[in-house]
Amino acid sequence: MNTTGRNIRLTTFGESHGAAIGGIIDGFPSNVRIDLEAVQAELDRRRPGQSHITTGRQEADRVRVLSGMLDGVTTGAPIGFIIENTNQRSGDYEEMAHVFRPSHADFTYEAKYGIRDYRGGGRASARETATRVVGGAFCKQLLAEHGIRIEAWTQQVGHVEMKEATADPESNAVRCPDSEAAARMIELIEQVKAEGDTIGGIVGCKISGVPAGVGEPHFDRLNARLGSAMFSIPAVKGVEFGMGFAGCSRRGSEVIDEFTTDVEGRIVTKTNHSGGIQGGLSNGMDIELRVGFKPVATLLREVNTVTDAGEPTVLKARGRHDACVVPRAVPVVEAMAALTIADFICGVR
Amino acid sequence: MNTTGRNIRLTTFGESHGAAIGGIIDGFPSNVRIDLEAVQAELDRRRPGQSHITTGRQEADRVRVLSGMLDGVTTGAPIGFIIENTNQRSGDYEEMAHVFRPSHADFTYEAKYGIRDYRGGGRASARETATRVVGGAFCKQLLAEHGIRIEAWTQQVGHVEMKEATADPESNAVRCPDSEAAARMIELIEQVKAEGDTIGGIVGCKISGVPAGVGEPHFDRLNARLGSAMFSIPAVKGVEFGMGFAGCSRRGSEVIDEFTTDVEGRIVTKTNHSGGIQGGLSNGMDIELRVGFKPVATLLREVNTVTDAGEPTVLKARGRHDACVVPRAVPVVEAMAALTIADFICGVR
Amino acid sequence: MNTTGRNIRLTTFGESHGAAIGGIIDGFPSNVRIDLEAVQAELDRRRPGQSHITTGRQEADRVRVLSGMLDGVTTGAPIGFIIENTNQRSGDYEEMAHVFRPSHADFTYEAKYGIRDYRGGGRASARETATRVVGGAFCKQLLAEHGIRIEAWTQQVGHVEMKEATADPESNAVRCPDSEAAARMIELIEQVKAEGDTIGGIVGCKISGVPAGVGEPHFDRLNARLGSAMFSIPAVKGVEFGMGFAGCSRRGSEVIDEFTTDVEGRIVTKTNHSGGIQGGLSNGMDIELRVGFKPVATLLREVNTVTDAGEPTVLKARGRHDACVVPRAVPVVEAMAALTIADFICGVR
Amino acid sequence: MNTTGRNIRLTTFGESHGAAIGGIIDGFPSNVRIDLEAVQAELDRRRPGQSHITTGRQEADRVRVLSGMLDGVTTGAPIGFIIENTNQRSGDYEEMAHVFRPSHADFTYEAKYGIRDYRGGGRASARETATRVVGGAFCKQLLAEHGIRIEAWTQQVGHVEMKEATADPESNAVRCPDSEAAARMIELIEQVKAEGDTIGGIVGCKISGVPAGVGEPHFDRLNARLGSAMFSIPAVKGVEFGMGFAGCSRRGSEVIDEFTTDVEGRIVTKTNHSGGIQGGLSNGMDIELRVGFKPVATLLREVNTVTDAGEPTVLKARGRHDACVVPRAVPVVEAMAALTIADFICGVR
Repeated sequence: MNTTGRNIRLTTFGESHGAAIGGIIDGFPSNVRIDLEAVQAELDRRRPGQSHITTGRQEADRVRVLSGMLDGVTTGAPIGFIIENTNQRSGDYEEMAHVFRPSHADFTYEAKYGIRDYRGGGRASARETATRVVGGAFCKQLLAEHGIRIEAWTQQVGHVEMKEATADPESNAVRCPDSEAAARMIELIEQVKAEGDTIGGIVGCKISGVPAGVGEPHFDRLNARLGSAMFSIPAVKGVEFGMGFAGCSRRGSEVIDEFTTDVEGRIVTKTNHSGGIQGGLSNGMDIELRVGFKPVATLLREVNTVTDAGEPTVLKARGRHDACVVPRAVPVVEAMAALTIADFICGVR
Repeated sequence: MNTTGRNIRLTTFGESHGAAIGGIIDGFPSNVRIDLEAVQAELDRRRPGQSHITTGRQEADRVRVLSGMLDGVTTGAPIGFIIENTNQRSGDYEEMAHVFRPSHADFTYEAKYGIRDYRGGGRASARETATRVVGGAFCKQLLAEHGIRIEAWTQQVGHVEMKEATADPESNAVRCPDSEAAARMIELIEQVKAEGDTIGGIVGCKISGVPAGVGEPHFDRLNARLGSAMFSIPAVKGVEFGMGFAGCSRRGSEVIDEFTTDVEGRIVTKTNHSGGIQGGLSNGMDIELRVGFKPVATLLREVNTVTDAGEPTVLKARGRHDACVVPRAVPVVEAMAALTIADFICGVR
Repeated sequence: MNTTGRNIRLTTFGESHGAAIGGIIDGFPSNVRIDLEAVQAELDRRRPGQSHITTGRQEADRVRVLSGMLDGVTTGAPIGFIIENTNQRSGDYEEMAHVFRPSHADFTYEAKYGIRDYRGGGRASARETATRVVGGAFCKQLLAEHGIRIEAWTQQVGHVEMKEATADPESNAVRCPDSEAAARMIELIEQVKAEGDTIGGIVGCKISGVPAGVGEPHFDRLNARLGSAMFSIPAVKGVEFGMGFAGCSRRGSEVIDEFTTDVEGRIVTKTNHSGGIQGGLSNGMDIELRVGFKPVATLLREVNTVTDAGEPTVLKARGRHDACVVPRAVPVVEAMAALTIADFICGVR
Repeated sequence: MNTTGRNIRLTTFGESHGAAIGGIIDGFPSNVRIDLEAVQAELDRRRPGQSHITTGRQEADRVRVLSGMLDGVTTGAPIGFIIENTNQRSGDYEEMAHVFRPSHADFTYEAKYGIRDYRGGGRASARETATRVVGGAFCKQLLAEHGIRIEAWTQQVGHVEMKEATADPESNAVRCPDSEAAARMIELIEQVKAEGDTIGGIVGCKISGVPAGVGEPHFDRLNARLGSAMFSIPAVKGVEFGMGFAGCSRRGSEVIDEFTTDVEGRIVTKTNHSGGIQGGLSNGMDIELRVGFKPVATLLREVNTVTDAGEPTVLKARGRHDACVVPRAVPVVEAMAALTIADFICGVR
């Protein structure tokens, strides 16, 4: 399915090198004023070629909204949008028609569909996430009206972990709120890139302002839905909430979040080991998660592989991909979080 | 939603201390011979009171299938089943009516519904997972006909990690295939229990025999759906596939899975860092995941908390819960994996 | 799918002659006080053997609610319920194992599933509608809290049409609010029954109190969802709203519903040719529909048919079925209307 | 929801006078060769201004497919498409901003959304059906590969009913296969139009080649799904299958469809009163239905109505609408039937 959500639903289409990518946001509430420049700004955060550490592919990535709005305000009708592809150098990709790139989806798409659009990864390209960013940008504006704020950042690149948030993550090319770590991350990415290699990393995300009681037992728990949303992003191999895997080696007495009351008499927890979710429902504390990305599989060096006939072959170095996808994945993580939370809270009925 | 799945759908009902729990399996293929004793045997693996390291609650947990079968064979009609609750000591729980247990769902259910069944956790009790085990047991038998096998085991308890699989995980109380580690895990659980505490852990899971091409881009990726299924299990705080979070600090050249051909000429990968999934679709290799459980929040000692009026109070020690849920979570992880894979492959249309 | 609804979902199971039938109502709001005797009373309206013109099959049809309620009030948890089958004379049905009854689902179930439960129609039996009546009864009580009232009645039996509503439809065995027509309908049914035949008819239904704006464009229009709900009832061959088919031969100027304002200044329509729905959304007027039932196919006389091997054979007369299903279908139409309207208005989120 | 289907899903967007309308077809099988000219030809059948009896609005209605195809063949990826609106005379519609046209969706949309796009009916305009025709055209080509053929025609206009099919329905402007009746229908439409009025009618539809066993009990019966699909078309007020409402006054002995075997030994029915569906599943005979359309509410004369403040006002005559929508609804009925049947039979899994 190329649709996510039950109440607010985003359906997407488009291949890396087709005519256009786009989507439909359905179930979005009416009478919400949308700042389309802010939507475009989100898209610019995900845009290829935005800094020297990202892919050299140049796409203007201008979103065009085709329906669902009247005089800057949503009408409750489905919001159709497209982003024309300006870069369709299919010719470059002819050699890919019969080769399976390792750790890419070429082989699995061929297995499922018996055909694949080999031009730049086709539908499996991470380019599809641009349409999610558009959907997420609408939802972020909607959630802001409900006092809900979503922030993601680069938590780790390779072995370089951030320590303390001291800066705006948008203030550096790697989107890390720890300036010192950011500098080392950028250095690492440059080094890896120079070696024709790639590197993995972790995106952190915090969702604040969600009232207690959001989510649905049992199979649509808030963590299940957020987890699914994150695993739907290309290259994600791990998701954890609150203490996550680190909590698995801890004792209950160390990690339970005791209740207390805040200055306004509301019930809150003293700690937030659970990351804002109890029993699949939000408890009113910040929702905290981490999303682990594997290193991107498109190396900038020669790679051994096989053809679709199973014959060994060598893929030439291809030079346009990101050495680390994490910085450009940050707005995608935010978008998926926004779509998920908005779906629970704000769908038109 | 208390329903999981699109083609094969399990819907469950029931509270910890109500009359019965049960469910409906819909979309299950016809003409599948089901061994109901094997279904019961799965349920016995999850049953409370099965060994000295699990909860003292005694429940016979006998499943009664009410529909959807004729002479031992499925008919394609929905399979209704119930498990009567034999242990309904509601009286024990009266004191819980106005107290929020820390790191439990009491507070969040109250926030969502404005009412909660306080008897033993009500709907939020892990007892609900018994109905998933029934659904999973049907699916395991179905998948076996397709040559698909699902195995889970205890990978880690506290800081004790398994090293090498040398034994049948079912051969020890903790369900760890490394006998030496199993002994240390049991020792740790006993010690934690004696101290009135609890401990977290990790379940490993392997799904073998899934052909290449199973899954659906983009939002129903196999990892998104498996991830969601795992996060829907109570107490799960992390899920990872293949190298998972460990791969985030690695380079692409280290972790890409190069293709080769096997003795029968089929395209396979030399390594399986991706855990059997590429681009959201199975690639024919074993699907490997790990599921992290936080320590259960019901301590066997006094705990500070608040009433629903926000007044501080002290919860008395309650002695019947598992000090570590991981061993009994093993069949639940298998059940959720079975339901998910069967849903993709086998639904009636 | 054996599930109906998106927000409030009823999933049903059970065969005519299995151990039990039942269902799960999921997404039902919390804190709704339910009168279980009123639920049982609805079930009694559908019960076989309630009058001399209905089937001789005797079923006590006692509903047992297993979950989702606490002290008479719903908790938001799924409501599981079962109705044990007391009448399981499977032996009677052995001869049906290899015969396809004309205009029944025997042949089509066999074609779809390659197996069928031949005992009394198995899953295809109209007995399944008892579980819908339970779900509908919960929803009727919920809708009553919103000032919404659903009434159905027998509009026509054979060529006997009601003229004017002068009586409580529940005051006669055929559930027709026109006492004079009711007498002729009963006479017709008795005559048809005496001749070993059956007769069709039409159920009328009115839903009052629905506010303007309920429904969803485009594919979940209120009429599309109500239409689907009605066509899901066994033996229904036609559904129409407002003027229905009669309006197809009329001119626009005759049938448009002009707006005016009522005494309280609210915008209403002078006429209601559209049956309370415009553009797929309620307009605040009564929603009016008619549901056409074919004559039941189980005749009380010998019938020519074929075996599953295609050999001609003769079905013996079977004497227990209704000569006209319409009176007992009245509560089922109400139940489906209640489930549909409640789904749009009241689902938990 | 603006999505229809479970396995093959069409999601649509767009307003009458916005920038473009369009949609996404998701779940469409891969490796299906699509004749895009045939898709365009279907769209031309629905196009405004195609004959003297249809609306004067001129729209080129050229469909542009943006994704999901490679070299004329589907890839299994979602098929995005748009139809640019060339006619956006919003200015004409300013006067509509505060007026509720009788028997249109103006009032109900305002009630639901608190805002509406008043330009030409906005989202509620029948123009949306153009996107369904595109989706249906893809499905018709797919179904043709399965030997399934869908034909619709004008059965009745006002009181003029067709008698016998003697001609290609496409051979006359009214799409009636009875040439003599067609002439009288056209005459009636011209007369009604001259009087500034409109007239209703009935579309007949036959689906042949569907194998036995297609459909899903209980809530997704083939008739429930087809019924829902038809009621989702603007202006539809009635749907019936086989004998439909006429069968309600008949006896069982008259209308049961006796089984026999055909020359190839297959089990078939001697008659087809049930219209090809038994127990919600196809029985292999032709599926026959009729869809009743009310007269369109946009009269070509002055109409009394109210403003959104409830003040009486008079709508001026507006001259561009069809006096009878039935001829142009024929391809829409076919499209909805094609989408529904394809959804059951052909979805990618």
